[in-house]
Amino acid sequence: MHTDLVAALDIGGTKIAGALIDGRGGILARAQRPTPAKEDGETVMGAVSGVLGELRKASDWDAVRAVGIGSAGPVDASEGTVSPVNVAAWRGFPLVARVREATGDLPVTLVGDGVAIAAAEHWQGAARGHDNALCMVVSTGVGGGLVIGGQVHPGPTGNSGHIGHISVDLDGDLCPCGGRGCVERIASGPNIARRALADGWEPGTDGDATAAGVAAAARAGDRIARASFDRAAQALAASIAATATLVEIDIAVIGGGVAKAGDLLFTPLRAALKEYATLSFVQGLEVVPAQMGTDAGLVGAAAGALRHFGGTGA
Amino acid sequence: MHTDLVAALDIGGTKIAGALIDGRGGILARAQRPTPAKEDGETVMGAVSGVLGELRKASDWDAVRAVGIGSAGPVDASEGTVSPVNVAAWRGFPLVARVREATGDLPVTLVGDGVAIAAAEHWQGAARGHDNALCMVVSTGVGGGLVIGGQVHPGPTGNSGHIGHISVDLDGDLCPCGGRGCVERIASGPNIARRALADGWEPGTDGDATAAGVAAAARAGDRIARASFDRAAQALAASIAATATLVEIDIAVIGGGVAKAGDLLFTPLRAALKEYATLSFVQGLEVVPAQMGTDAGLVGAAAGALRHFGGTGA
Repeated sequence: MHTDLVAALDIGGTKIAGALIDGRGGILARAQRPTPAKEDGETVMGAVSGVLGELRKASDWDAVRAVGIGSAGPVDASEGTVSPVNVAAWRGFPLVARVREATGDLPVTLVGDGVAIAAAEHWQGAARGHDNALCMVVSTGVGGGLVIGGQVHPGPTGNSGHIGHISVDLDGDLCPCGGRGCVERIASGPNIARRALADGWEPGTDGDATAAGVAAAARAGDRIARASFDRAAQALAASIAATATLVEIDIAVIGGGVAKAGDLLFTPLRAALKEYATLSFVQGLEVVPAQMGTDAGLVGAAAGALRHFGGTGA
Repeated sequence: MHTDLVAALDIGGTKIAGALIDGRGGILARAQRPTPAKEDGETVMGAVSGVLGELRKASDWDAVRAVGIGSAGPVDASEGTVSPVNVAAWRGFPLVARVREATGDLPVTLVGDGVAIAAAEHWQGAARGHDNALCMVVSTGVGGGLVIGGQVHPGPTGNSGHIGHISVDLDGDLCPCGGRGCVERIASGPNIARRALADGWEPGTDGDATAAGVAAAARAGDRIARASFDRAAQALAASIAATATLVEIDIAVIGGGVAKAGDLLFTPLRAALKEYATLSFVQGLEVVPAQMGTDAGLVGAAAGALRHFGGTGA
């Protein structure tokens, strides 16, 4: 006899991952395709269908009760559509309806990828046991999701916790989103590298001009490289403090490639947090590294679908 | 026969107001004392007891089922204590226990004053019918409260929505709270006046050097005065956009003395909002003036207490 399962989809600009997941977060089957991000909308949907088709061949498929999707945003959970910035042909694409069709009318839940990450960290990771939490990914972009009052908080359209595009510098640089001084414009990996290069940092003999290269140089004592991480940490601290001041979170969990820099990021971040998280009710705020690995998006998408039919989940 | 009532207390640095309030928000009796804010803690409590004593003499007191308190913050609803910035002798003062004693063991609920204002606007004012809202007071300080998912969101300690002390300018001026570039440091009435004076504005013949004086000068065409309001509007817009991006509110309600400037504040604020609220899911965000008057704190405190025993309320 089967346990109830969900099918989870994690849709990003680079790959489309799928899995069958049980009520404890165990992964029973996997499938993955590259995202044909430059192609037309039906070709992208074809990759999703390919992943689902593979999953349907798994012996456990008959136990699947629901589908959970976490997608690069913006999403519109109320309309069931997605418009991922990096998938140009999908603008208001009716992903929920198309996945429902492709799975024989299973119930489908959709959230933004930041919300999915928060669901995963709250269910199985660093935010477990915390009723009020912010979970962030600091990588090519900066995203996030919130846990409020013990529940993941997707918001009406599934985009809540979009911390990368709040302004912490109202006169700051223009952001590709149209805003100014957004956290992502200061703290994302590419912006850490851009700032270091602009300030005169030169990549090492390996030619690595990414944030990882900046991190290596900072660890070797390069002051410009370190200053670029410090600035990212300051922006992250201001945004985390703002979130705590607005919704009373007690923990912020940070994952993603930039968080792999470890103390190089977390030490100045915790120091800066003392400057911005000043009110009594936010002074106890902790900042910790994420615990979920690359499956966080899938596990978080599953958590949403499991909640939907009472099959447990965060 | 009586309807069930609640006793409401609105505790500020200037006055302590009390009222008996019915399940529809109607005020049946009132009492008020000045806050002896410079005196010792027991003297301040004496003023609260005086207000409660007057209310207990009202013919309707027997119908009172609960007490709701909205207090200047920070508060700690989980501990039942208050530490209002402007009442120096009250630090961790056990207000909930003392009010329970003074009212014959009635259940007592406590929230911050910003949360109370949000409860009032959501129940009876400009946020009515909105499931996700930010309600702000822009006055001597800048405060606020949130409605999330159809419910007022006090947060674990009753301080959520403390938007006056989020940073929108991470390198900005030091704020008395210890932070930098806080919204209040840019947008409160005293800071609007301070900036105008520092930039060379001179008060008119009436000598009014407050934000009201700056507003009058701006309306008469003074460019420095107008620029100071524009800057306040910009900071408010960045903070409102940040809140919407984090928790998906669809309306921001602004009251308080500075909001009385009307279009002088709201026109540049709505224009600046377009620059900061850029993501698709926040572009529909509305900003409107508050509808509740000076009783907002009392009505909001009552709403919390009414919910407590199912006597209705926001």
